[in-house]
Amino acid sequence: MTAAENSVGIVSPKRFRHPAPFVLQCGETLEGFELVYETYGELNDAASNAVLVCHALSGNHHAAGFHDASDEKPGWWDACIGPGKPIDTSRYFVVSPNNLGGCHGSSGPLTTDPSTGRPYGPDFPAVTVKDWVASQAFLADHLGISRFTAIVGGSLGGMQAMQWAIDLPDRLHSAILIASAARLSAQNIAFNEIARQAILSDSQFHQGRYRERGRNPDLGLMLARMVGHVTYLSDDGMGRKFGREIKSGDIRHGRDVQFQVESYLHYQGRSFSKRFDANTYLLMTYALDYFDPASDFDDDLVRTLEGTRCNFCVISFSSDWRFSAERSKEIVDALMMARKNVISCTIESDQGHDAFLLPIPRYFDVLGGYFDRLFTEIDHAR
Amino acid sequence: MTAAENSVGIVSPKRFRHPAPFVLQCGETLEGFELVYETYGELNDAASNAVLVCHALSGNHHAAGFHDASDEKPGWWDACIGPGKPIDTSRYFVVSPNNLGGCHGSSGPLTTDPSTGRPYGPDFPAVTVKDWVASQAFLADHLGISRFTAIVGGSLGGMQAMQWAIDLPDRLHSAILIASAARLSAQNIAFNEIARQAILSDSQFHQGRYRERGRNPDLGLMLARMVGHVTYLSDDGMGRKFGREIKSGDIRHGRDVQFQVESYLHYQGRSFSKRFDANTYLLMTYALDYFDPASDFDDDLVRTLEGTRCNFCVISFSSDWRFSAERSKEIVDALMMARKNVISCTIESDQGHDAFLLPIPRYFDVLGGYFDRLFTEIDHAR
Repeated sequence: MTAAENSVGIVSPKRFRHPAPFVLQCGETLEGFELVYETYGELNDAASNAVLVCHALSGNHHAAGFHDASDEKPGWWDACIGPGKPIDTSRYFVVSPNNLGGCHGSSGPLTTDPSTGRPYGPDFPAVTVKDWVASQAFLADHLGISRFTAIVGGSLGGMQAMQWAIDLPDRLHSAILIASAARLSAQNIAFNEIARQAILSDSQFHQGRYRERGRNPDLGLMLARMVGHVTYLSDDGMGRKFGREIKSGDIRHGRDVQFQVESYLHYQGRSFSKRFDANTYLLMTYALDYFDPASDFDDDLVRTLEGTRCNFCVISFSSDWRFSAERSKEIVDALMMARKNVISCTIESDQGHDAFLLPIPRYFDVLGGYFDRLFTEIDHAR
Repeated sequence: MTAAENSVGIVSPKRFRHPAPFVLQCGETLEGFELVYETYGELNDAASNAVLVCHALSGNHHAAGFHDASDEKPGWWDACIGPGKPIDTSRYFVVSPNNLGGCHGSSGPLTTDPSTGRPYGPDFPAVTVKDWVASQAFLADHLGISRFTAIVGGSLGGMQAMQWAIDLPDRLHSAILIASAARLSAQNIAFNEIARQAILSDSQFHQGRYRERGRNPDLGLMLARMVGHVTYLSDDGMGRKFGREIKSGDIRHGRDVQFQVESYLHYQGRSFSKRFDANTYLLMTYALDYFDPASDFDDDLVRTLEGTRCNFCVISFSSDWRFSAERSKEIVDALMMARKNVISCTIESDQGHDAFLLPIPRYFDVLGGYFDRLFTEIDHAR
């Protein structure tokens, strides 16, 4: 790789340690925790140009740039974050943490439980979107950020942005919710449960103590990812990309046929099982399932959002059936009923839920335009 | 159970043996085969009132009535088949076979391979929709039926009806294709492959020789069924049926929560793994994936259907996303371009692909009306 001009270039993860006990929503207490995070751009003197990027189910802190000159791939949202990109690092200071319970350096199943001296594994306590927000707020304190210009995320990341707006209304100017929902539907939960069952059923799972036995539930993780992946794409998009193209075998005689789409999913699944921890996958899907801020307000989403004080930008994608445009509309409607400042749009795309990760021109125009306007606003405010 | 007046009552499966070698599309030869089947109603003297019912992926020959007075459930399409029902057994003679390769009595992975004296298991040859049609034609010969009034099926069953129309155009008066498609999409194949991988990954699968070891890939079959089941329902239908209702646990604290939808899927999956054979499941999903009659006609569906001589009735369901109304429309359009007699309709329903099994009033009106008209036509023809 050569760091292109509009790349943030080589970046190094940092580590934040919260030294005090942290009480989780589940009632358990962590004796402190660590968050690994990256930052891109410079925090201005007024600390008024900070953007928090919240990652989705299988994301992590490495959102942009490269760790090393030999890296083949940049961070997961590199297309969106960098000088001159929609989240312009020549203007903004971007903070991107790995969530609590994650498997890329933050306290989670792979880190050591101080009370036992061995990895938490399956005993890492249940974490919720609220817990993530609370832990990210400690990180913000540490960085001297009292208020984010924007908190932005897709999918589960959008849920964090929404929860920030509800729980800490004075600490953000804008929440940008992309391909998200106010809570999962029964179908969403069902797909998550299938993924979990795939992991739990794997004979190498060993009640979550696979690492200590030198094992890994590769097949279960692979299946979980295959299920996820298919649901993140659209029927049309898959048709365009793969159709019924044959990778190998003799379809006329039904012998050892492998369609391209199968080969692709196997590859995606295998590669995922090498880079993601099964206990974290379970924990993250539970957090997704349990997210339901309106449940604290008699299931009334309007009342739930009445206490928010930020602006909202809500973006959805036409072919996303896992977090459909309808689900974004529910949020927008509730925000309007709650008399909040919200702009929204549905981007035409045949790329399903995955669209939120892709540099679709109109999507990036909308997002870049919004961040542009935000910059003018914080400039005026100074 | 008490056999209601409009039930076909107690029925007994019959067995047909084809005594001669049967060459499959894959090139392998079965030294004869057996089909288990049921019949309902009486064949008239002219043998002109026969209806063939083709089952879908996990169906079998037991389409209507009860095997025993103690049965809790009737056959899988009992709502549709019986005296006074859409497929009226007081008029029609209904034939319902278990497909070749099935696991409910027809020659398949569970039956004995005469060349080895042990069950075929994973060595049962690949069968295709064409093979099913050819084998069903031998059953028809045996029953003295040279021409069916109608051949009807949902999903994979509809593919068989279409293949009959293509391969044996003089042997049916009408083909009724319900919630079907001219071939699977990449997304369809992907879901089938996930189900297969769930089975193949199960440590109890033993390369398909599980029975001989007294094992069964229960978890893999359960997962396969869960994937299937979710994709046979619609998001809205699941929302209406389950919503986010909690079966057990404490969601506020994220402890051991089970949503109703999870509990339901577990139950469905477990019950399926007790009644269905894994090798048959693999074989049936491959047949589904490989079905593509237009591939013999330069991918031109119009040309594919030009040689058909029957009438067509094509029915789809508005919320079916596994075999969407669009897929039925492709068939209807091609039939119209080929100057065939086709009627079609899309039934409003929030019950997804599963709708084809359910007694939805408008659906049954359409189907019953069509069979009513058919009866008049065969009566005139006599």
